[in-house]
Amino acid sequence: MQTRSKETRSHIMDAAIGELCRRGYDTASVSDICKEAGVSKGAFYHHFPSKQALFLAIMRDWLKGIDTQLFANREQGKNIPQAIQDMGSTLGVIFQAASGQLPMFMEFMVQASRDKEVWNAVIAPYRQYQQGFSDLINEGIKEGSFRADVEAGEAAWVLISLAVGILLQGVVDPGAADWESVTNKGVQMILDGLQEKEK
Amino acid sequence: MQTRSKETRSHIMDAAIGELCRRGYDTASVSDICKEAGVSKGAFYHHFPSKQALFLAIMRDWLKGIDTQLFANREQGKNIPQAIQDMGSTLGVIFQAASGQLPMFMEFMVQASRDKEVWNAVIAPYRQYQQGFSDLINEGIKEGSFRADVEAGEAAWVLISLAVGILLQGVVDPGAADWESVTNKGVQMILDGLQEKEK
Repeated sequence: MQTRSKETRSHIMDAAIGELCRRGYDTASVSDICKEAGVSKGAFYHHFPSKQALFLAIMRDWLKGIDTQLFANREQGKNIPQAIQDMGSTLGVIFQAASGQLPMFMEFMVQASRDKEVWNAVIAPYRQYQQGFSDLINEGIKEGSFRADVEAGEAAWVLISLAVGILLQGVVDPGAADWESVTNKGVQMILDGLQEKEK
Repeated sequence: MQTRSKETRSHIMDAAIGELCRRGYDTASVSDICKEAGVSKGAFYHHFPSKQALFLAIMRDWLKGIDTQLFANREQGKNIPQAIQDMGSTLGVIFQAASGQLPMFMEFMVQASRDKEVWNAVIAPYRQYQQGFSDLINEGIKEGSFRADVEAGEAAWVLISLAVGILLQGVVDPGAADWESVTNKGVQMILDGLQEKEK
């Protein structure tokens, strides 16, 4: 894609994020997004065949970004519990960077429960995270950090559920708690729960 | 309220839950809800001044029901970790009973992030849950089940975040895991994390 065309695409996506956060998916309109982005409808439809297609593109970028931040930045020489703690801190960074966009993320989930195509697009990367955590936890069992009877798959869902719940609450009620601290404490508790009990 | 009037009110609320789940708050219309409930618009507005008022009434009932199920059914003679485990199992029951209604609950959260009046109505009971868990955890510290240095307020948010995350994922991807089992394991891990480590 040429630079100019890429820029247009990214302007449209930025404008759409703003509109989706303010109005929600059902109410946000292609006209308003075009106005906000300063592009013609022709340019819009050149990049995205529909509002849904735009929505899905934003979501894919979002989920891919989280994936990269979570799994690609693992430091060498740390054991698995340390690596998972680092990922908890990364959540705080993702959180702050995307704080204005989080209502949109929640909207993705609501839409996914209602629209099969959105659902398919959400579910694949989501299950990948679970696979990623599951692999990490199995590695942790192998290195002796976690108990041998830990079910990695379920433990991975517990970690993801905690993260999703904290993200959702942080959007709805940012002032209720120091959510970064809640994240770190929560991850630590779960890691403690996975570790071999000292006798 | 007379029986007849109460019935009408409850028909409207049931119809609205269906419409909200299927279409979402922005798209659900008073006309469709009336049609579905078999009531006139006059009857509707006799009970609810607006769609928002109806939405808030449904939400209040929902949140009150959860509160009762979680906190009112505590069995005597159990220690705090056992009581919290029971609450985890209750989540499974709430989950199954309300499985069709959960997209609506998520919608509440999205709307709350956008609408100050909804926010106020969501936040008060929500913070009460946190207070309830916080009190329980403090009791657990007193009875010696949990470490003295546990911060009850944050630990309460960790439990609630886990529950919220599991509910959200259970709505979006019910087949991905045995969510009841994930709940029980997750609660157990957190409880392990709060307990005195044996030396």
